[in-house]
Amino acid sequence: MSGKPRGLADVVAASTAISDIDGEKGRLIYRGYDIHDIAGRISFEECVHLLQRGTLPTRAELDALTAELAADRTIGETAESLVKYVSRSGTPMEALRTLISALAVDDPDGSETSPDANRCKATRLVAQMPMLVAHYEAARQGSAVPPPAPDLGIAGNFLYQITGERPAERATQIMDECLVLHADHTMNASTFTARVIAATLSDMHSAITGAMGALRGPLHGGANEAVMHTLLEIDGGPDAVETFVRAELDAGRKLMGFGHRVYTTEDPRATHLRKLSEELAELAGEPRFYEMSRRMEAVVLDAKGLYPNVDFFAATVYHTLGIPVDLFTPVFAISRMSGWTAHVIEQHEDNRLIRPDSDYTGPHDLQWVPISAR
Amino acid sequence: MSGKPRGLADVVAASTAISDIDGEKGRLIYRGYDIHDIAGRISFEECVHLLQRGTLPTRAELDALTAELAADRTIGETAESLVKYVSRSGTPMEALRTLISALAVDDPDGSETSPDANRCKATRLVAQMPMLVAHYEAARQGSAVPPPAPDLGIAGNFLYQITGERPAERATQIMDECLVLHADHTMNASTFTARVIAATLSDMHSAITGAMGALRGPLHGGANEAVMHTLLEIDGGPDAVETFVRAELDAGRKLMGFGHRVYTTEDPRATHLRKLSEELAELAGEPRFYEMSRRMEAVVLDAKGLYPNVDFFAATVYHTLGIPVDLFTPVFAISRMSGWTAHVIEQHEDNRLIRPDSDYTGPHDLQWVPISAR
Repeated sequence: MSGKPRGLADVVAASTAISDIDGEKGRLIYRGYDIHDIAGRISFEECVHLLQRGTLPTRAELDALTAELAADRTIGETAESLVKYVSRSGTPMEALRTLISALAVDDPDGSETSPDANRCKATRLVAQMPMLVAHYEAARQGSAVPPPAPDLGIAGNFLYQITGERPAERATQIMDECLVLHADHTMNASTFTARVIAATLSDMHSAITGAMGALRGPLHGGANEAVMHTLLEIDGGPDAVETFVRAELDAGRKLMGFGHRVYTTEDPRATHLRKLSEELAELAGEPRFYEMSRRMEAVVLDAKGLYPNVDFFAATVYHTLGIPVDLFTPVFAISRMSGWTAHVIEQHEDNRLIRPDSDYTGPHDLQWVPISAR
Repeated sequence: MSGKPRGLADVVAASTAISDIDGEKGRLIYRGYDIHDIAGRISFEECVHLLQRGTLPTRAELDALTAELAADRTIGETAESLVKYVSRSGTPMEALRTLISALAVDDPDGSETSPDANRCKATRLVAQMPMLVAHYEAARQGSAVPPPAPDLGIAGNFLYQITGERPAERATQIMDECLVLHADHTMNASTFTARVIAATLSDMHSAITGAMGALRGPLHGGANEAVMHTLLEIDGGPDAVETFVRAELDAGRKLMGFGHRVYTTEDPRATHLRKLSEELAELAGEPRFYEMSRRMEAVVLDAKGLYPNVDFFAATVYHTLGIPVDLFTPVFAISRMSGWTAHVIEQHEDNRLIRPDSDYTGPHDLQWVPISAR
């Protein structure tokens, strides 16, 4: 490698059959299916089956998975005990990182890393992640978590447990589509973290806890919250956007929600999220943030040549669905749990320790002297 | 890259001024100092200063750091509350991963990632890690943690809090040297994990929690425990070693504690640990495991051409120091905390997101069909 190492850009770190990106064509593939072909057509549960088990499920397979997910809607005694302590943290991703780690204590498959154990843990974690978020939200509000609604899937039940009200059918469908759109994205930083950890033959919970820490970062999952904060910060609605954005860019500040390491054209997930954002704005009769987003998108494309990424329109969608801004990244985690766990399964199936080299830039040939002579 | 991606072997993932390895010459460098020059000559506290702050400390700098470390010997209300719940886990690294994550709730620097906050957190975590291990050990024994002994450094105080007895001076020195020997090792899997997480601009505790998950793996920190289990498994003492080892190798089983991705000759840390193991065996009048280790070393070199690595003689050293086998990997973490935190500081100083590519091996051009038609 010549020059300074640049964050492993364009370096192939692993083989995977789970997802693929063509950054120039703006294509995202889940196990052979184009995201444009399946978004809005498959449920998140079908997506979980596709990513973790390799195929879109038959009706019988989906029924079996749905039953397994419903049975796994419990977080165990340890996490239940801990939630009141960690909910004192003002940062949901920090609390949830601790709670995910704690789930391992009560996991029926313990520290096992066999294919069977991994498969069960993967499904269980997908069921548990939204439960953890709901428990965290209830704990900090000082309220009780509504018991899961057995007739609602992951998307609908999450909205129900967070807001305390049964969501409208279309709101549930839109939440469901968001979960499908965020489910996997090749070697993003959190997924890569999970694979590096799993490649020491460490266990599923270790890998996912690490991924939670990476997703939290403002250059990764934290970006969707930053987008909403920006929109909330702009006084004056759509007409104030251009002045604000140009001032930020002129000051050298980065606007979150734009550009992507891999895509040189529009992120295909943004295409769907833009439509969902528009539809929700109409349904709610609240077009303000959608219109502000469209203005911002146009100004940033003009000024910087950057396209919106997955985080940009997700912000307004989640906001309109009634999700608190600081739970946007946890919602990302609810979805990405399906991809993370699939990657851990795949890493363990054909493992090799991931252990790169480094380029040493420090001093050479220093000689120890006693502390009295320093 | 041609052929199958191989765990990023020989791929430069980052620049670092913290440590360097020459695998062919068997050299390990900490910020310009050869490990052979400093092992046994500097305390772990001096090593922490070297790795985190860049230089061997003057007397005044060391006194200041020692005072800071002593003041940080407290784990906070949240971790103290959680320890009784997570100590129900039979796996110390699992419990400690959760506790490290929970430390963030009470950290005075919160989620800050500024250079000052990172420096304070780095020092604090070095002070807190052995306290967490001592709290975990006390909780599972149903006993109280002895209050820290203000006149003992990290090594001596750890032995004191774990065993309940003030350690002999030479035992403390040997523990101290072990901590120096394990402190940093370039882009090992746990350090690399910490850097991948930090590169999303996530916080110190997220990065370290991820590193704990990676260190736990049997291909990484978990190996020292595996070595001791093997030694304990062999009935018949030194004379039974050769038959056992050859039978294992003939059966295609891997013996932990031998070979290393980076070294093609003896791991320089093993050179020191072999001497410490021999000395401790003499001091304790218990040569059995040391002699067994020497026999095993000879057979594996003869049969497989593999040299012992850092984990091999560390096992007998820790065992003779009275540390329970399942705390060997946590002891590794106490030491490596110094390196992990230094790498997070360095990553944040000149950051770029670490986001590699992958090689897609899955199906192409699948078409969605409704579930009723699958």
